[in-house]
Parts: sequence; C-alpha cells; structure tokens
Amino acid sequence: MAMKRNVCVVITARPSYSRIRSALEAIKQHPDLTLQLVVAASALLDRYGRADHVMEKEGFTIDRRVYMILEGENPITSAKSTGLGLAELATVFSDLQPDVVVTIADRFETMATAVCAAYMNIPLVHVQGGEITGSIDEKVRHAVTKLADTHFVSTPKAAERVIRMGERPDRVHVTGCPSIDLAKQAIEHPTLSIESLFERYGGVGSRFDVTKGYLVVMQHPVTTEYEQSRRHIEETLHAIRELNRPTLWFWPNVDAGSDGTSTGIRAFRENHHLPHIHFFKNMRPEDFIQVLHHSQCLVGNSSVGIRECAFLGTPVINIGSRQNGRDRGENVLDIGYHRKDIIEAIEKQIATGKYPSDSLYGTGDAGQTIANLLPHIDLSIEKRLTF
Amino acid sequence: MAMKRNVCVVITARPSYSRIRSALEAIKQHPDLTLQLVVAASALLDRYGRADHVMEKEGFTIDRRVYMILEGENPITSAKSTGLGLAELATVFSDLQPDVVVTIADRFETMATAVCAAYMNIPLVHVQGGEITGSIDEKVRHAVTKLADTHFVSTPKAAERVIRMGERPDRVHVTGCPSIDLAKQAIEHPTLSIESLFERYGGVGSRFDVTKGYLVVMQHPVTTEYEQSRRHIEETLHAIRELNRPTLWFWPNVDAGSDGTSTGIRAFRENHHLPHIHFFKNMRPEDFIQVLHHSQCLVGNSSVGIRECAFLGTPVINIGSRQNGRDRGENVLDIGYHRKDIIEAIEKQIATGKYPSDSLYGTGDAGQTIANLLPHIDLSIEKRLTF
Amino acid sequence: MAMKRNVCVVITARPSYSRIRSALEAIKQHPDLTLQLVVAASALLDRYGRADHVMEKEGFTIDRRVYMILEGENPITSAKSTGLGLAELATVFSDLQPDVVVTIADRFETMATAVCAAYMNIPLVHVQGGEITGSIDEKVRHAVTKLADTHFVSTPKAAERVIRMGERPDRVHVTGCPSIDLAKQAIEHPTLSIESLFERYGGVGSRFDVTKGYLVVMQHPVTTEYEQSRRHIEETLHAIRELNRPTLWFWPNVDAGSDGTSTGIRAFRENHHLPHIHFFKNMRPEDFIQVLHHSQCLVGNSSVGIRECAFLGTPVINIGSRQNGRDRGENVLDIGYHRKDIIEAIEKQIATGKYPSDSLYGTGDAGQTIANLLPHIDLSIEKRLTF
Amino acid sequence: MAMKRNVCVVITARPSYSRIRSALEAIKQHPDLTLQLVVAASALLDRYGRADHVMEKEGFTIDRRVYMILEGENPITSAKSTGLGLAELATVFSDLQPDVVVTIADRFETMATAVCAAYMNIPLVHVQGGEITGSIDEKVRHAVTKLADTHFVSTPKAAERVIRMGERPDRVHVTGCPSIDLAKQAIEHPTLSIESLFERYGGVGSRFDVTKGYLVVMQHPVTTEYEQSRRHIEETLHAIRELNRPTLWFWPNVDAGSDGTSTGIRAFRENHHLPHIHFFKNMRPEDFIQVLHHSQCLVGNSSVGIRECAFLGTPVINIGSRQNGRDRGENVLDIGYHRKDIIEAIEKQIATGKYPSDSLYGTGDAGQTIANLLPHIDLSIEKRLTF
Repeated sequence: MAMKRNVCVVITARPSYSRIRSALEAIKQHPDLTLQLVVAASALLDRYGRADHVMEKEGFTIDRRVYMILEGENPITSAKSTGLGLAELATVFSDLQPDVVVTIADRFETMATAVCAAYMNIPLVHVQGGEITGSIDEKVRHAVTKLADTHFVSTPKAAERVIRMGERPDRVHVTGCPSIDLAKQAIEHPTLSIESLFERYGGVGSRFDVTKGYLVVMQHPVTTEYEQSRRHIEETLHAIRELNRPTLWFWPNVDAGSDGTSTGIRAFRENHHLPHIHFFKNMRPEDFIQVLHHSQCLVGNSSVGIRECAFLGTPVINIGSRQNGRDRGENVLDIGYHRKDIIEAIEKQIATGKYPSDSLYGTGDAGQTIANLLPHIDLSIEKRLTF
Repeated sequence: MAMKRNVCVVITARPSYSRIRSALEAIKQHPDLTLQLVVAASALLDRYGRADHVMEKEGFTIDRRVYMILEGENPITSAKSTGLGLAELATVFSDLQPDVVVTIADRFETMATAVCAAYMNIPLVHVQGGEITGSIDEKVRHAVTKLADTHFVSTPKAAERVIRMGERPDRVHVTGCPSIDLAKQAIEHPTLSIESLFERYGGVGSRFDVTKGYLVVMQHPVTTEYEQSRRHIEETLHAIRELNRPTLWFWPNVDAGSDGTSTGIRAFRENHHLPHIHFFKNMRPEDFIQVLHHSQCLVGNSSVGIRECAFLGTPVINIGSRQNGRDRGENVLDIGYHRKDIIEAIEKQIATGKYPSDSLYGTGDAGQTIANLLPHIDLSIEKRLTF
Repeated sequence: MAMKRNVCVVITARPSYSRIRSALEAIKQHPDLTLQLVVAASALLDRYGRADHVMEKEGFTIDRRVYMILEGENPITSAKSTGLGLAELATVFSDLQPDVVVTIADRFETMATAVCAAYMNIPLVHVQGGEITGSIDEKVRHAVTKLADTHFVSTPKAAERVIRMGERPDRVHVTGCPSIDLAKQAIEHPTLSIESLFERYGGVGSRFDVTKGYLVVMQHPVTTEYEQSRRHIEETLHAIRELNRPTLWFWPNVDAGSDGTSTGIRAFRENHHLPHIHFFKNMRPEDFIQVLHHSQCLVGNSSVGIRECAFLGTPVINIGSRQNGRDRGENVLDIGYHRKDIIEAIEKQIATGKYPSDSLYGTGDAGQTIANLLPHIDLSIEKRLTF
Repeated sequence: MAMKRNVCVVITARPSYSRIRSALEAIKQHPDLTLQLVVAASALLDRYGRADHVMEKEGFTIDRRVYMILEGENPITSAKSTGLGLAELATVFSDLQPDVVVTIADRFETMATAVCAAYMNIPLVHVQGGEITGSIDEKVRHAVTKLADTHFVSTPKAAERVIRMGERPDRVHVTGCPSIDLAKQAIEHPTLSIESLFERYGGVGSRFDVTKGYLVVMQHPVTTEYEQSRRHIEETLHAIRELNRPTLWFWPNVDAGSDGTSTGIRAFRENHHLPHIHFFKNMRPEDFIQVLHHSQCLVGNSSVGIRECAFLGTPVINIGSRQNGRDRGENVLDIGYHRKDIIEAIEKQIATGKYPSDSLYGTGDAGQTIANLLPHIDLSIEKRLTF
C-alpha cells in the first residue's frame, strides 16, 4: 500500500489563498494526500486581513506561520523580506519533511518558497506559470518555472510557453485556474445578498443603493515604477470623482510601492468630498465575486479583471501595464493612466453592459484536477533543458 | 559627457574570481566604467583560501564584504545562507547604488545576487548562462537567466539556448568564457615553474618528480545526491591508489554535501598509505592552469576539464553527472563512479597524450569584450517572453 | 594632536530622537567629535512618522538606515526584529568603524545596538540607565547596563542604582535627561502658537477652542501584558468619553501589543460619537512640549508625564504599571485601569492646577554635558563587577 | 493534578552539554517535568564534534536543531550569528511553547537564548551566573542575569554577587555546578582505561606511555584580544616544546578569534618536530575527566582547571586573563603569557603533585538539585531591582 504524500502549500497573501482554495480543499479530502499548510508574509498581517484567521474559520489547520515581511515597503525591504522568508522556510521544510512543495503564481515572496524547495531537494510544483504580465512579476514567474519540477498552468497558451522555455512537456498540465472554481461556486451558491453589503462589511464612506448599479475599483501599485504609483492612483481617483457614480473601492495588497498608492488615496480622501465612494479593506473572496458579478464595471489593474471577470462576463477597464500580455477575453478594455481615458472607457463599458461567460481560464474544476494529479506526478528533481 | 557606469560584480567563491578576473581587470581599466567589487560567501573564508586577500594582492579594491555562509554544509544551510545573502546584499546595493549588477555562472549563492538586483530594480547581467549541467546548478543557472536583463554567454550554443528560453536576441552576447583568457595568459606568461610546485605551495603528502608526468584530481560533491558523496569520492580514491602514479589532488570548494566528500578523503588518507599523492588546498589560478597544462590527465568532475582543458588540450576523465550536457571537446572522456572504469579511462588518456587546442569556449579575449559591451547595454529592466 | 572621536548614535524610534536631540546637536558641534547617525526600526516607518525625515529637516545627515521591524506586532516578531537588527548593525558598525556607540534608554530594539557593540569590541555608552519601570523594559534596561562601558544617567538615584549593580563609579555620570533640554528650549522659544494647533497638524476629529483648557492622552500598550492592552485602553476611552472635556489624543508608538491598543481606539471611535476628542499621530517634539505646557492634565502612561511634566509642572494622571518605580515629582497621580478612578483623578488634578517646576530630571543642559564628556571617557572595554 | 512543566534547555556547544548533562538527565527522569532539548550553534558542527550526535547516543531526543553560526570567526560574525540565533529561536519557542527556558553560562550565543525568552515572555533560568572572568564573557554573563528570572548558581559567592546586582534573594539558588556531577561520576565509574587512550580516540601525533605521567593543554582564544591570540598560543607552544614532556593537547572550541589560535597551532606543528605531543579534537567528557584525573598538570585557560580540577585535586597552570576573578582552589597557579613563566610553573606543580579535593564548586548533586527545583520555581516574569 502506498504512503500518503505530504503536500506542503505555502500561502503568502490573502488573494493567493482565494485563488488556490478549491485546490486546498481537494488536497485535504484526497485519500492519498496529506495537506501541510504554511501561512506566511502578508497573509499573517492585520493590515491585509489576516488570511490565516480566514483559513481557520474555513476549516483548515495551519501547520506553520512564517513572519517575513520587513516593514518599509520599498525595494530594499522586498529583497530583505524574501531573504528572511527563504531562511525561515528552510526551518519549516526541515520540520515538516514534505514530499512536494506547491507555490502559487508570481508574488515576490514566492521566490523564497521556490528557491528553498529547490535547494532542499524537494520537488516543486508551480501553479499558474507561463503567463505574461508587466513588471517584476514577469521575472519572478519565469524564474520560478525554471526552479519548478512540475507545472500546473491555467491555459493552453501558458502550457505552450512553459514548454517553449525548455520544460519537459510531460511535466506540464493544463488544469485551469483554481480561482475560476471559486467564481463558479460563488455564483451558484451566493453567500452574500448584495443588498446587505454595507451591513456585512462596514468599510469607510457613505452608503448608497447598490441595486441601481455601481463601479468597483481595485488598483495596485506597479512595482518597478515605484515613484509613479502616487501619480497613477491620482488619475483614477480624479476620474472616479468626476464620474460621480456609486463606487466600491478596494485597498491594494502589500507590495513594494503600495506606499505611494495608499498615501495617494488617503490624501485624496482628506482633500475631497467623495460621497459616492465607499472604501473596503477586505472581503471574503466569494463575496467579492458576488460584488464583481453585480458590478457595472471593474476599474483598475487587478488580475481578477482578466481571469474571474472573463468567466463572469463583467466589463473591465484595465489601466496601465500590470496585466500586459495576459490572455484576455472580450470583456476587457485596456487604457493608460489618464483620467479622461478612464472616464470615457467606463462610460463605454456601462453602455455595453454584461458580456457572455468565457472559459478562457477554466471551467471551475481546477482544484480537483490538481489534487487528482498530485499523487501521480514524478518526484524526480533532476532537470535539464529540453533543447 | 556621459557619466561613468557603476558596475557591481559580486564574487562568492575563489573559482568564480579566477573565472571572471580578466573581465574585472578590463572593467577597472575602462574609462566609462567604475568597478564596484563585492566579495561574499566562501570567498571570505580561510578554509577556501580567502579569495578576498588574493584580490587585494592582485590590485583590486574591495568595496564590501558579505559574510553569508551559515555553517552546517547541508541543504538546510545552503537555503538559509542564500536567504541571508539576499538580505545582506540589499544593504550593499542600497549603499553602492550600482547601475548594473554582474553575477557569474550558477553557484547556489548567485541566486541571492540575482534576486536582490531584480527586486531592487537594478539591471542584472548574467555571465555564463545557457549552459547545461547536472544537479541543482541547472535550476539555478536558468532561473538566473530569467531574472537577468543581459546575457554574456560563452558559446554560440549557449546563446541559442538562452534565446530559445524566451530572452530577447539583442540582449544575448557571445563573449567567450573569461576563464579562457586566464588560461591563455597563463600559458603565454607562466608564473610558476612546474619544478618548484611543492616548494611554492607546500600542501600535504610526499613529494615527487613532476617533470616525469602526473595526474591531477579535482572532484566536487554533487549537491542533489547528498548522501552518495562519500561513496563517489571513495571510488576515485581507490582508483588513484591502485594506479599508483604521481598525483596532485585538489580539495573541493564549499557546497552542500562537501562534507561527505571531505570526510571521505580524510578517512581514506588515515587508513591507507598513499605515498604517490600530494594534496593541495588552494593555488593561484594561473599556477593551476600551469599544473593542468603539464598534466597527463585531469580526473574528476570540475568544469575546468570541460572549459580550460579544451583550450589547453589536456586529456580529461570526467566522472559522473556534474558536467552532463556541457558542450565538450574531443579531450573529454565521460565515465561513471566505478573504480575500474576510472582506471581504464585514465590509462587510455595517458596513452593518447595531449590533444590540439579547441576554441569551443573562447579565444582568450572575453574579459575585454565584456568590458567593451557594458557601457552600451540597454539599462531597461522591463522584460517579457519573446513568445 | 588628538584625532576626532567617531560617536555613533543609533536611533530606533521617534521619541528616542526627541529625547536625545540636544545631545546630537552638541556632538555635531563639538570640535573633538564626529557624529555618525544610524536610524533604524520604527524611526524609518511611515506609520510612526518617519523620524528620519524629521532629522534631515532639522539639519542632521543620516549615515545609515537599518530596516529591522518584522511585521506582526507580537512577541515573536519583537524577538526576530531584534535579531535582524543585531545582524544588520554588525554591517553598519563594520562600515562606520565608530570609536564609541551610544544607545538610548530601554526600547526592545536597543538590545540589538548594545549586544552588537559589545560583541564587536566597541565601547558602549548607555544613556538613561538605572531607572525603574514596569514590564520588559526593566529587563532590557539593566541588561544594557551590564553590556555598557559608560553610563550617562538622568538622576542621582539612577546613578546610585547603576553603581550598586556593580558598575565602576568613575564610569557613571549624572548628566540629567536630554529630554529636559528640549522642554526648556521649547518653553523659552515656542515654535507653535497653541491657537494654530489644528491648522498646523490636521489630525482626525472635530476641532475646539484649545485656549479654554484641554486634556492630553497618550497611552502605550504594556508589553508583557499583551492581551490586556485592549481592555486597558477601553477604560481610558470610556473615562475620557464620560468627562466630555476637550481632549487631544496621541497614538501610541510601535511595540509588541500596540495592536490591542490601536484596535481598541479604532473600534471605540467607530462605535461612539466623540465630538470633544481630536486624534494626532505625530507632532514635532517641541510642539508637543508646548501642548503639554498648556494642558490641564496629561493622562496615560507615557514617560513624558514623569520627566518633562516634572520640569513643566503639568499635572499628570499616570495609569497602570508602565512607569512604576520611576522617580517622580509631586505633579504625578498614580492610578489603576478603572474608568471611575481615572475620571476622579483627572477632576482632582484640574482643580489643583499647575505645579511648580521640579529639576528632578535635569535643568536643561544634559546634551551639552554629554558632548563634553564623550571626548574624555575611557575607551577600555574590559569590565568586571566591582564586588 | 498539576500539568508537567515543559523545560526547554538550549545547548550551543559541546562543553556546555557536558556541563549540564546531569541536569538534563534529572529533568528527563523527573515526573513533573518534560525536557525539550534544543541544540544549536557549534554543537551541530563537525569541526566541534557534533554534540548533537553525542546526545542522541547518550539517550536524549533532540526537539529542534538551530543552525546559527555564520562562518568567518571574527567579531562581525559573532554579532551576526547571535542575531540569527535570536531570530531562529523565536520560531523554536513559538513551536515548542516551553514553560521555562534554561540557558547555561556565558558563551556569546547564550545571549540569543536569553533575549529571545525574555522578549517572548517565557520565564528564563540562568545556570552559572554570578561568576567573574575576563573578556566579553563577563558582559554576557551579567546581562543574562538581568534578563533571567531565576538563577541557579555554583557557589555561595556567586549567589551573593547575583543578589548584590539587584536580583531577588528568593530567586537565587546555590545548586553547585553540574559539571562537578560529571566529574564525580567519571571518577566513581570510569569509562576509559587511561592506557587505552590513543586506541580509543586516535588523534594526531606520536603515542607514548601515559601511565608515566603527562601534561594536558587546553587553551582558548580570549575574544576581546582578538589579534593577540596567535602570540598567546605560541608562548604556550614554545614552553611545551622546551619542556619536552609527554603532552596531550586539546583543540579550542569555536569563538571569535579561534582562528588565530588554530592557525598558530597548525603553523607551529608544521615547522617543528613535536614527538612528545599528541593532539585531540574531541573526547567524551567523562573520559576527559579521567584524562585530567591522571594528569600531572593542566595547562591553559579552560574553566575545567578552575571547576573540575578543584574537585579532582589536579594541579593547574592558568594562563592569562580568561579565568580572572573566578573563585579558585589551592590547586591553581596563575601566570601570564610568557614561555619561561609557563615552564617554571609547570615544573613547580609537578613537584607538588596532586592536591586534596575541594568542594568549592559543588559536591556532585547539582543536576538533581536543579531538577528538583524546576517544578516549584515561581513563573512570574515581572522583575524589578531590589534597591
């Protein structure tokens, strides 16, 4: 009889948790797998919604917590935090003795997980490789691909890119993106009645009738353009102010440069009367899907605009370079950092209305597919370019 | 008038210094460049020959020293050391404000340099990417390629591989390998008369007449096969013992697993009478070239067998998987970890004698070529896969 | 002719800067000293008012910045942050080669400075040792005393305690507390007209006429009573709410446990209408002195109540154990964490009114006294108990 | 029914293990205690005899291993190593949740244990405080005293000093030194027949008849006199060479500066013929006691000369400042770093011969005494000076 495989998943941020949750659930349930859950970085911090507490509420047991974010929110502390995380994870992997380590996507801290597993001779699975975006994430994602032994990618195009980079085709699996699983389930089994949004989540700013249409804004800083973050966010702020439509604004998650963005929002809020905007810090991902599902338009540069909104058919205004190169559906309108363009594009999308659902990033069963593959992947860590 | 570019080169081991020295010299002399020299990891340690002292004697000024090797010599400490190095280098780069960071080859600690430069938005130049080897180096090397912005590679085949991995062709330059520069100069201007070898370097073991032919052994542990290191080295030790020919044996440099190898050598030496073997810890690289040049055969798994010995025409027995996949000349005979095979192969090579020089890894001007390119490379750090 | 001494002062928090500023100024001006200024920990962080920016505005040059606060605000991250700071400061001291290191008071991060200097064989000067307080600070302060070579203490009683702990009497100097220098100067040369307080500092909450009397609240969490922080702050919040007098409330600075306090304040603010309270995050220390000088009563557990307010004669309500054991003047009323007691005590102090100035913590020339001593202190680092 | 107390003992070096072993044994056996064993620093390293392997052979289970020694052996790496250890131990204590942490003596790394326990609000027990020595150990030891909540000291004089430093008398217990327990047992139940010494331990150098009298040398570098280490050891080397008596020489353990000492020994050995000296790296502590017991004289600066040799009655030549201030018996002759004095003193001690046993450091039951106290010590972590 075969031993259960210890599958260690390292979660470093709340959005990564949402994205991988259906896979975590399926791994936990699988008879041939034991889930080892490591929660690290901003996923442990109050200001980013303590994803660890959410996980526990949702029935997961956390095996290790890794504090690794050095305060400062600049490129120096991003580098140092990653170094600390790498040093800390070596202790964790040494204690937990996983058979496989799973890392997700391309946040800067994921490099700590990837290097640590590789150096400790533990097979590494990378979820969501092979995609194309702007900024430092691009370097991180493909470097993790070169450290990983097995690749679970979201789209056939992503699989093609991973293989072209020299990875063995038999180690690349198109599983779809697990974030679509969540979107599918959230639509089928809503956990939030949109009318009770403010009551449920509080937040800051005046309240309005969300059943009559609203915008959603979520705009993150773009790491390698550190000093421009503030100017970027201000263009969006001005556009939203001028549009004067009901708007739900979500704070950005941690990143080098979030500082410019956060400061920009705070300053704008103090200097302008914004009775039509309501600010939220965190929201259960299922509920956020509900909010997107009923939204007239998502504005910003979040990847949910590209992924989940393709599935949902929600119109999207994608600002700037952050999502450049990602495969996208009809629902996305790309523009630059100019308030006029932003205003114009939003009005156009509202006029168009909802798009049909697009299965570009999956059909909602990625988590189960991943769990089904994990007991069977080859655990060899010897790699070589295929060319 | 253009400003000089600050070129920060991070050296983490004595062999890396030897390999890059001609480039360091050319950068230092170049009117448009300022060399910033960071010495780190085993290059600062007594047991690995204090490369920093060698550099100072050879006229270089060291800008920063970075202690980063956590003792233990196992996969846990390799991972932790890399994490510490990353955290430390962030301070160094913040102080020195380089315009370009240069990292060399594929040792585990080079990942610290590469990630740090990438995360701090400093253009990264990788020297010696695109090659194929066994072990963890393979993962490190290609991951560094994906973090790097410009690539200086040794061979046209390496250039082809880097480009196939999705790097922009205009960012890939075939410079040849700077280690060949050293070999060329060492042959043209010998700094060691081979007869005075023992007198100059001491070492441990009895002395013999090196003008009548000798073997050279240099065998490093193979990281991902940690526990087998000792068995591997013992096969070579037995073979060399049985051959009973004059042999110069060089200690391996630091690496996770060096422990098994070093322990193996020490134990063997205590339990056997080995009057025909002389052990060395360190040697000036020029002098080591001289030793290789006059050697009947190099035995082990060092990359000098593949690179410098191609140029020198020295016969090589390459044992095991460490150099797998590297482009090699006629002079190399590949075999496994069996004492009989080792003995047989050595005898065959001695019978064959010296090979003609092969320019596979360059013609001896790589350092100057690198320095000439550095003032002109594009400093943009935005990357995207070419496919 | 004697060389100038390099005096390296490590500042880890904004209040520490205020406290030592007059000494920094005097060191900078002294012909026999060179000031080396290292800014670290919360003194670099936005949420704690970027003391580094304040220093630069006030004419100081910062030699090194040390990011060391690991986010999490719990005992684990306090310990880890101190460890990281120690590792980082070793690099800094190695670069700057100070003749003397100066550390201030008893914050948890000061242990990093003290251990680092001791281990690197650099003479350590401790400012403000020998005092008695509650909580972990007590352990830190006296441990730093045992690592320090020279002691600049605030009061004769503190000197006596340091000597009784086994330090050599000739190494203990009563300089007074430099924070009194600032208080003296702020009173003599006001930089803030109290009427323009809101205009100058903004802050959050409604505005009122400060010329008609007001309370000041500043209450920090008490580290070793981590979980009680929230209950403690709520008692004070309820008391202030019931009193319904104009109140200026200052946020606590970083510390393990600040979380409970901050969360408590935020939640209370959301659940209650508090039109008579105005919240400030940061204030120039001179201006804060002005605010204290004109205040009817200071409420909380800040050491300014003990030190500066003695000099100013401002009535103080000191809550809980944080300042236990500190020598205090007539102006301080000590009470526990009960809203009723707080209310009663405040009313009593308002009825009493201003106290006469008390020179218990110095007469306002401590900074100059410190600078005058530094060129002459013995630099031997050999210590031995005197008994 | 009372819960068992988790007692976490952190061992950072092989000699510390030997010293505390009888207490570990007694804690392990005690019905009200659970032993949590953390092995760290040089106790994990090959070059210092892998104390962790010894512990496992002797029946202990190791709960956590903490790699923390940064290679370099200079004051910078001592400071950095301590910082890393502090960061690592925070993870360990968070995992193990000890009720009490025990730290031993005064090695530089013990500060990591002490600060970590204090900052994580875990009661700290310090074994062997209150003693007086030279060098940096002095600062470390007393700083640990100020961080500790309970003190188990070796002698009444040590207790007096700890109390005079301001510690509460009811928290100070004279237990005797556990190293004497080992000495007592080693004498009563010898594990080594002295005639089989070379056979059992190998070592380097020629062999001689140990039944006819021999010297033992053990000399450590003195940390704060870093650069003089080499000169110091050379005086002893010359003295021993001139004496030309059978000598067993033991290598020093890790410490900043060990470099000068080790290099000195190695160089001397290469340049001189030393047929009467045999070098050992490690020895089971019981066997080392046996070696001391039969020795004519111990030479060097080890604390065993002061402690165990008092009990054994072995004559001791104590060189230099390392043991200054320690209470010592009649058996110790103190001298400086001059070969002539060393020679003369050794001859005098050999002439005198064995001294009577002295119970200055205990009577051999310290371990049991410590284990009996641990279930009953007060776990409060609130401290205050007693004056």
